[in-house]
Amino acid sequence: MSAYTITYIKNENKKEKPDFDNLAFGKYFTDHMFILDYSEQKEWHNARIVPYKPLQLDPAAIVFHYGQTVFEGLKAYKTKSGDIQLFRPNKNMERLNRSNERMCIPEIDEEFAIEAIKNLVEIDKDWVPDAPGTSLYIRPFIISTEPYLGVSPSSTYQFIIILSPVGAYYEEGINPVRIAVENEFVRAVKGGTGEAKTAGNYASSLKAQEMVSNKGYAQVLWLDGIEKKYIEEVGSMNVFFVINDEVITPELNGSILNGVTRNSVITLLNHWNIPVKERKITMEEIYEYAQNGELKEAFGAGTAAVISPIGELSWNDKKIEINDGKTGKISFDLYETLTGIQYGRDEDIFDWIVKVKF
Amino acid sequence: MSAYTITYIKNENKKEKPDFDNLAFGKYFTDHMFILDYSEQKEWHNARIVPYKPLQLDPAAIVFHYGQTVFEGLKAYKTKSGDIQLFRPNKNMERLNRSNERMCIPEIDEEFAIEAIKNLVEIDKDWVPDAPGTSLYIRPFIISTEPYLGVSPSSTYQFIIILSPVGAYYEEGINPVRIAVENEFVRAVKGGTGEAKTAGNYASSLKAQEMVSNKGYAQVLWLDGIEKKYIEEVGSMNVFFVINDEVITPELNGSILNGVTRNSVITLLNHWNIPVKERKITMEEIYEYAQNGELKEAFGAGTAAVISPIGELSWNDKKIEINDGKTGKISFDLYETLTGIQYGRDEDIFDWIVKVKF
Repeated sequence: MSAYTITYIKNENKKEKPDFDNLAFGKYFTDHMFILDYSEQKEWHNARIVPYKPLQLDPAAIVFHYGQTVFEGLKAYKTKSGDIQLFRPNKNMERLNRSNERMCIPEIDEEFAIEAIKNLVEIDKDWVPDAPGTSLYIRPFIISTEPYLGVSPSSTYQFIIILSPVGAYYEEGINPVRIAVENEFVRAVKGGTGEAKTAGNYASSLKAQEMVSNKGYAQVLWLDGIEKKYIEEVGSMNVFFVINDEVITPELNGSILNGVTRNSVITLLNHWNIPVKERKITMEEIYEYAQNGELKEAFGAGTAAVISPIGELSWNDKKIEINDGKTGKISFDLYETLTGIQYGRDEDIFDWIVKVKF
Repeated sequence: MSAYTITYIKNENKKEKPDFDNLAFGKYFTDHMFILDYSEQKEWHNARIVPYKPLQLDPAAIVFHYGQTVFEGLKAYKTKSGDIQLFRPNKNMERLNRSNERMCIPEIDEEFAIEAIKNLVEIDKDWVPDAPGTSLYIRPFIISTEPYLGVSPSSTYQFIIILSPVGAYYEEGINPVRIAVENEFVRAVKGGTGEAKTAGNYASSLKAQEMVSNKGYAQVLWLDGIEKKYIEEVGSMNVFFVINDEVITPELNGSILNGVTRNSVITLLNHWNIPVKERKITMEEIYEYAQNGELKEAFGAGTAAVISPIGELSWNDKKIEINDGKTGKISFDLYETLTGIQYGRDEDIFDWIVKVKF
């Protein structure tokens, strides 16, 4: 166990809770937040849970100018018996440290970070919604706080955790979306920051997303930044295709995010003896599979939606309809099993669940 | 003229000024800052100059998570006669709006932004240092402030201007630096955000910069993200090479910053009838020019250093010494002429100077 202790200052002016039937995503925040400071002298120090309130930052803080920041996203789920549980938080904290390494941010103590999450969730446990599909979204992030306009790593940081009760991603059951292949804009490239969960990747994606939204598509399918040929991600999710009886997904190459849901999907498919391959996949190839009737399903995988089936792919002037625009069996089974484990309906056979005690 | 009016709240607790002989870069900030708010209902509104103080931002503000932000950098110079003047601020504000367009941030009124800069500099005029080579660095920037964890453009922003007195870039006269060609990491790629002055590009550069610094190099020479073959930028500057009697610089391609100093260098070279070409340049080609004795000079061009001569280039296991590690004639003439115009020693023949009246 870590040597840190967490100071707790209770919020005596608790907020009125929002309507838990209309939460949407990432709009409401709980009564408390966790903060840990970093300075070169003291390293990570002053762990505290305090009332949720505005951060005070110098206008010259590096985060505003040079975006030296990383984040994570995971959820706490309420089970039928009233337990609150996390899904593979160790994977998120491992990735946070990989992102830190790429972004020149000092390493955090992963085990302690999980303790901090559990403590915070326990304190704000009344904010975990319990309607089907709802959860408490957990956002750990690190910002560079030194007031300095030189382009160099900050000497001070804050590691912060905030919590947001979120509604069901699918209000009327899991449902396929329309996706447009992006040929102009690029999310990331080898040698860049694509594998890190850092602000710039998301800032970079806004323009393409805005353009396809205006044309009625839900998300962008990103191609590689070098040849605009290989499939990388869909929106901010990893992507999978079912070709005949085999599942394929782009291999990790330095510009693709190493998703926790991606890893869980691969583990489940292996467990079910469904062949799954991580490899390079061209958009041309997917189009040909579709033409030949071999493309059976396609879906995105990420923390927010868990599984997001793709019903239609638009590529230049070509349209590919997938599984008649309906959710396929593998997509559905993955969704049901993953959410089953997350909400405690199904047995936790892979030891993925971490209980929040209270 | 713009319809905005600027409210002014005077700082009654002025700071003690730092030692103007030891300013370095971007460490000290003046007594006031400019802020302009944006909301969807009111658009840009509430222009104000207020005491420099911490910003209060919700921990869920989009800037901390998805880096939707842009910035600019320019300087105010004090002339011998005590005038304070800006160098081509219209170019910076034009570029700010181009960056805004790429990053889905609402357009600002360029003319008004220049008025805001002039107003702020006038109020903090005692902070403009007057020792040779010193200046007042001006940092306009826009941050996304909506507390929302969805990946989409913010509905609220703040446009902020802060000022920082900075020391002479060259303490002992203009001096060449050692540069390492970067083969692993990439700053930007076509279809990404390289042409925008946005946080993510700089965050992305930190790791490579840290690695070459540890090996004793001042900066990284960036190659293109696609073939790692074409030269793009040096550190956070544009780059120029003198080949025999001709000057060449990488052509703008969507991933290279459209520098104000770059544009000024090209204008001056044209005026001097020195041939200058914007074109694709491979690192291989520069190596061959060097081997043949045709590479006469190389230099970076940017607001901070104005001209930064390159004395040595390291590329894989090859070392290229340029002009015996000394500052070349074209580099020196450009530096003297640009700073001459900036500090009012030389005539402003291109109408580049904007005076701050007081």
